[in-house]
Amino acid sequence: MCAGSIMSSLCVLPPECLLQPFTVPQRLMLGPGPSNVPARITAAGAQPILGHLHAETIEIMNQIKSGIQYAFQTQNRVTLAVSGPGHAAMECAIFNSLEHGESVLIAINGIWGERAAEIAERIGTDSALDKYRPVVFFLTHGESSTGVVHPIDGIGDLCHKYNCLFLVDSVAALGGTPICMDEQGIDIMYTGSQKVLNAPPGTAPISFSERACQKIFNRRTKPISYFLDMNLLANYWGCDDKPVRAYHHTGPVTSFYGLRESLAILAETGLENSWKRHKEVAEYFHKGLGEMGLKLFVQDKKARLPTVTTIVAPPGYDWREITGYIMKTYNMEISGGLGPSAGMVLRVGLMGCNSSKANVDKVLEALADALKHCHKSRV
Amino acid sequence: MCAGSIMSSLCVLPPECLLQPFTVPQRLMLGPGPSNVPARITAAGAQPILGHLHAETIEIMNQIKSGIQYAFQTQNRVTLAVSGPGHAAMECAIFNSLEHGESVLIAINGIWGERAAEIAERIGTDSALDKYRPVVFFLTHGESSTGVVHPIDGIGDLCHKYNCLFLVDSVAALGGTPICMDEQGIDIMYTGSQKVLNAPPGTAPISFSERACQKIFNRRTKPISYFLDMNLLANYWGCDDKPVRAYHHTGPVTSFYGLRESLAILAETGLENSWKRHKEVAEYFHKGLGEMGLKLFVQDKKARLPTVTTIVAPPGYDWREITGYIMKTYNMEISGGLGPSAGMVLRVGLMGCNSSKANVDKVLEALADALKHCHKSRV
Repeated sequence: MCAGSIMSSLCVLPPECLLQPFTVPQRLMLGPGPSNVPARITAAGAQPILGHLHAETIEIMNQIKSGIQYAFQTQNRVTLAVSGPGHAAMECAIFNSLEHGESVLIAINGIWGERAAEIAERIGTDSALDKYRPVVFFLTHGESSTGVVHPIDGIGDLCHKYNCLFLVDSVAALGGTPICMDEQGIDIMYTGSQKVLNAPPGTAPISFSERACQKIFNRRTKPISYFLDMNLLANYWGCDDKPVRAYHHTGPVTSFYGLRESLAILAETGLENSWKRHKEVAEYFHKGLGEMGLKLFVQDKKARLPTVTTIVAPPGYDWREITGYIMKTYNMEISGGLGPSAGMVLRVGLMGCNSSKANVDKVLEALADALKHCHKSRV
Repeated sequence: MCAGSIMSSLCVLPPECLLQPFTVPQRLMLGPGPSNVPARITAAGAQPILGHLHAETIEIMNQIKSGIQYAFQTQNRVTLAVSGPGHAAMECAIFNSLEHGESVLIAINGIWGERAAEIAERIGTDSALDKYRPVVFFLTHGESSTGVVHPIDGIGDLCHKYNCLFLVDSVAALGGTPICMDEQGIDIMYTGSQKVLNAPPGTAPISFSERACQKIFNRRTKPISYFLDMNLLANYWGCDDKPVRAYHHTGPVTSFYGLRESLAILAETGLENSWKRHKEVAEYFHKGLGEMGLKLFVQDKKARLPTVTTIVAPPGYDWREITGYIMKTYNMEISGGLGPSAGMVLRVGLMGCNSSKANVDKVLEALADALKHCHKSRV
C-alpha cells in the first residue's frame, strides 16, 4: 500500500511537463478582461505572505474597504471583497439576498442577466413579475457581451417604491463610467478586480446598503453557501460591531495586496478623471473605427459602454481569423462575441491602464492589417 | 446627480489610507497556514497576465492537473483546481456530491468536520446513519485544529461495500504525510494551495473518482452553485471529452501560475522525500518539545500530524501572551487552538519549505524564551 510505506514506489510518477521551466509571454490584453496588470500591482502581490488575521492584513482589508467605498461612491458599512472571481460575488449577492420561494426580477440584456437568472433558479426563486412582487431587481450596468451601458438613474427609487432591492452587476463598467451607489439608490453592487481596476482576477468587491442589510441579516433561513454567507463575511471583514473577527476562511492575502494597490491607483487618479479618460479614449476609438469603415454594434452613442466596445463582425470575414491573426501577429488579445453576441461582433476592451490613445492606435493598426490579410469572401 | 455629470464633485473622497505607500513585513509563518511562499513561486505569480482561455493558460491548467494527479496519486480524469480557498473546494465537494434529502455521514473529529456538517445541513441533507444509508462519508485526513492525522486504509472499501462515496479533506496534510487517492479508494479529495504546497491562498486542488463522477454527473437536480458546478468546471478544465472549453468564469490566472510552480517543486522534490522530511522534522520537533518539558496534545505517536503540531498550552501561562511575545520578539507566527482545541493548545505548522530542522531550532528557541519572559501564575 503506497500510503503505508514511505519507501515504496508511487503509482503516479512526477509529470514531465512540470519538470520543464515555467515561462509566460508578455501580451497586450485588449479583450473584455482580464486586462494588463501594471508593475506596481504585480509588485504588491509579490510581497511576503502574512496570516489572514494578522494585524497588518486586517489593516490592508480596512484600506480595501475604504477603497471600494470610494470606487462605489458609498458609505455602506458592509463593504468588502469576496475571495473569488466576479461569479463568486454574483452568487454572494443572490444567495444572500434571496430565499427559497422568493421572487426576483432579472433584466436579461445580455449574458450576465442570463447567468444571474440561472443562479437564482438554482435556489428555487421565482422570476415572474406579473404574479409575484419581486424581492430583488437585478440589472447589469455594463453588459460586456453587447457593449451596452445601462442607465441607472431612477431605477433605485422605483424599486424602493415597491419594496424591492436594487442589485447591480458593474463588473465590466466600474471605474470606467459613472456610477454612484448611494445617490442612485443601489442596494447591492459588485465588480471584479481584473477589469478597470487592473488587478489579477481572484477578488471581487461587493457592497450592501442598510436596506439590503435589513433583508440579508433577518432571513428565515441560512444562505445556501457557508463560504459566501454575509453573516460570516461581514464579521470577517470587520463590518459588524463585534470586537473580534472570527476565522471564516483563509483569505487570498497576496491577492488582497494587489487589490489594495489597484484601489490606491484609482484613488490617486481620481474617479472623475478615470471616467473622463475612458470616455475620451472610447470616443477616439469609435471615431477611428468609423474612419476604417467598421460599424459599432451599439447604435446609440449614449448607450455605448466606454470600457468594452462591440464592433459589428466585418461582413465577409470569419471573425475567428481576425482575432487569431491579431493574436499571432501583434501578440494582442481582442475577442469575439459571447452569449447573445457570439459570432456577431468583435469585442475590444480598453480598461484602466489599458485605456489610452496609444493603445487605440495599436488596435486600429492591427485591425486594418487583419482586414488586409485575412480571407474575405464576396458578400 | 453625481453619475450624470462627469465634472461634479464626488460624495465619497479618496481615502487617505490609500494615498500612503504600501509595505508588508517579512515574517516566518509557522502557524497552521498560510505558510511562507518561496521566491520561485512568488516570481511565477508575478509573471504577465494571460487570458483565462488563452492557449498558454490552458497548457498551464493541464500541467496543474498533472501535478495534482501526482500529489494526490490518482489517475482521475476529473482533477482540477477550484478558483477559491479550501472552503470553496469543501463546498464544491459537498454541493456536487449531495442532493436535497440525501444522507451524509460526517466524522466530526475537529473543526473541519463541524464545518462540513454545517455546509451539508444548508443544502438539506440528513446525517443520521442509523436511519438512512449515507451517500457520502466525509473524513478529515489531517485535523489542523487537534493535530491528529486520521488513518485512511480500509475506509474506502467499507464505504464502497455500502455504496457510499468516500470524501476526504486533506487540506492540512496533503504532501506532508502519505495518502494515495486511488489505492486507498478515496472518491473525492481536496486540499488548499497555502499549506504544504507553499503557494498563496486562493486556489484549491480537487479530484473526483469515476465512481464519484457517476454520481455527480447523473444528478436529478443541478448543484446549488453555478460557480462550483462540476458539470461546468470539468469542461472548463478540459476534463470531459468535449473539444471546446466553454467560458465559465474568469480563473485567477496568476494564482494558477503560482500553483503550477508549487506543484513543480513537489514533483522535483518527490512525494516520498517530502513525506519523509515532514516526518523527520516533526519527530525532531517533538523530541525538542519533550526536552523542554512541553507536552504534545496528541498522545499516540502514530496519530500525530507531521504538518501541524499541537502542544498542550503550558499550565500557568496565558497562551495569547506566548504567541504575542513570539510574534513581537521573533516576527514569527505560531498559533493558538481553533474550534474544539481553542484555549487548550499552541499550534505550530512546519509545512513544505518551512519543514526544516533550522526552523525547528528557531521555534524551540522562541518558545523557551517566551516561557522565560511571559507571566506565569503558580499552578
